Amino acid sequence: MRLYADDRSAPARHEMTEPAGRVDLDSGSRLRWDALAGEWVVMAAHRLKRPFSGVTSVCPLCPGTGAECEIPGGAYDVAVFDNRYPALGAPGPRGAPPAAPEPFTDVPAAGVCEVVSFGSAHNTTLAEQPVRRVRTVIEAWADRTRALNSRPDVAQVVCFENHGAAVGASLAHPHGQIYGYPFVPPLLARGRDAARRARRAGGCLFCDTVAAEEVAAVRVVLAGRHWIAMVPYAARWPFEVHLFARRHVPDLPALDEEERAELALVYRSVLRRFAAVAETPLPYMALWAQAPARGGREADHLHARLFSTHGVDGRVKRLAAGELGTGAWVSEADPEAAAAALRAAIPSDRADVRRTAKHDR
Amino acid sequence: MRLYADDRSAPARHEMTEPAGRVDLDSGSRLRWDALAGEWVVMAAHRLKRPFSGVTSVCPLCPGTGAECEIPGGAYDVAVFDNRYPALGAPGPRGAPPAAPEPFTDVPAAGVCEVVSFGSAHNTTLAEQPVRRVRTVIEAWADRTRALNSRPDVAQVVCFENHGAAVGASLAHPHGQIYGYPFVPPLLARGRDAARRARRAGGCLFCDTVAAEEVAAVRVVLAGRHWIAMVPYAARWPFEVHLFARRHVPDLPALDEEERAELALVYRSVLRRFAAVAETPLPYMALWAQAPARGGREADHLHARLFSTHGVDGRVKRLAAGELGTGAWVSEADPEAAAAALRAAIPSDRADVRRTAKHDR
Repeated sequence: MRLYADDRSAPARHEMTEPAGRVDLDSGSRLRWDALAGEWVVMAAHRLKRPFSGVTSVCPLCPGTGAECEIPGGAYDVAVFDNRYPALGAPGPRGAPPAAPEPFTDVPAAGVCEVVSFGSAHNTTLAEQPVRRVRTVIEAWADRTRALNSRPDVAQVVCFENHGAAVGASLAHPHGQIYGYPFVPPLLARGRDAARRARRAGGCLFCDTVAAEEVAAVRVVLAGRHWIAMVPYAARWPFEVHLFARRHVPDLPALDEEERAELALVYRSVLRRFAAVAETPLPYMALWAQAPARGGREADHLHARLFSTHGVDGRVKRLAAGELGTGAWVSEADPEAAAAALRAAIPSDRADVRRTAKHDR
Repeated sequence: MRLYADDRSAPARHEMTEPAGRVDLDSGSRLRWDALAGEWVVMAAHRLKRPFSGVTSVCPLCPGTGAECEIPGGAYDVAVFDNRYPALGAPGPRGAPPAAPEPFTDVPAAGVCEVVSFGSAHNTTLAEQPVRRVRTVIEAWADRTRALNSRPDVAQVVCFENHGAAVGASLAHPHGQIYGYPFVPPLLARGRDAARRARRAGGCLFCDTVAAEEVAAVRVVLAGRHWIAMVPYAARWPFEVHLFARRHVPDLPALDEEERAELALVYRSVLRRFAAVAETPLPYMALWAQAPARGGREADHLHARLFSTHGVDGRVKRLAAGELGTGAWVSEADPEAAAAALRAAIPSDRADVRRTAKHDR
């Protein structure tokens, strides 16, 4: 378990490390090769036994002393700990699964699953936290990305959040997760392939997209000195935002101080817009697309993808046989209208970001 | 509108064709190129206006005379007609969208969307129909696949069904749909790529899978002379069945009489198992993976993919940031246990299929 304090000027970052003889949790999961899709599937049927909201009376992320408690002691700012019901992880030394598996290949599901608690307060959300707390979350993401990238059984670190019971979050306490996948997940791999092709042709797909979107302007939600948030051109969800670093950086650990400070503001601003744009706060999913642990990191361009399955009028984008069975997406999103709504949701925030809030560093 | 009769020995197949001057419906949809995913996305925000169950008091698929009625006249067996709220379709002559689009490309969404009503009875399901009705549905699928494959703006015909309000079916009347996509949908394209690679190496991914699964036996649900139904090795859904033709055929129109007759039995048997395996009938999605309209059809091997997001205990597989944001699937399916449960759901059906039900031809 690791603790990260909002007060980074304090002499010691209050941090606890795992015991020296730490043994990786056995997730019990296997990877099976889906030869038709050309993808690994994590087989984790045993995870159906994990607790759901309401099953236990004690919140495991609230500070306390009981057996369910994950973070012993008093109030804390940000805590990262091993997921007690991991989807990934196998004991013993593990490397990457085979790169070109035969049909009917299965291997232990190596990797790691961690939980990031956004603070000791239960009845709140990350959007409602002060900017300095979001900054501490960013520090935790960057620190764990660096640490997990050094593991031989981790190919890709993904920091993500499922927010809201409507999108399946099993704990109400504000928290996210970090997965160290033993393979590069397919959607990220395809984005990477597209970026590499563009790079061979002399450009950066992401840098070029940022430049073109800034000219078009219609899909931009929020533009700072170091970050730009916009609804993607071919948005699939009622509300969807891509948050790009302006500098061509591979991952969160590569961000400098100024970039981290503004990211805290911009990231929170996007979350606040998701909370304000509809009558009730939107449930959402958010994740970071970072460079893989090894290999070809120079083509990657750090960005976050945030999206909500819910629209303003309570309509939910449901996936049917088309999307789930053939992959052909019929989007009911209106990207330009969604961007306008998100811009209008909190008009004052835009100026806040331009100021880059020195007081918040 | 086209009608297909169960009684195929009647002198004339009761069929109505469109007026000679038929104009394709304008869906109003556009295709936007998602450069990061390398996929077309159908942008159809206007579809939010389509009717949902309960909005209209009159079922448009029940025979009748009102303005809402799609199939005028009396009782019918199977009817195929244009979707009144199509996701695809553009007026005027249309070809395929560009094969290697630049970022920020959008084009009119050509293609076609049809509805297949499985009969004039409202309060029933395809699983509850006699085998001869399922056979008529197969005839309709094959006939429309052949017809739509000849259109220059159709690259891939997909016959599918979303069954049950839980998976978003907007009409309770038993029906499926047929989409003529102007591009090959991504999941089908990837399966095709895998099949082509295997073919260049001298095998067929599908024929080899059928042979290996028959030896392993543990995932086979139902095996006939011409068809085999099994839970895929890396199943993603609580219940999932792949139904393969044993013969290496590209699509439904290529099936011979015996294959069609047995398919009606086997397909209905899989649906009946989905209806019987849990306390309440499972909602499901089903679709046919067929060869594309043009190009490289010899690598394709006809199969259906049927799956339910629901498990036996009412638990639903929810997609979260992992699956939707990164494409890395964490499956809670137990493929071998699911196959055993589906085998046990209707033990007697197995023998029925072995007999190939001559009386049903």
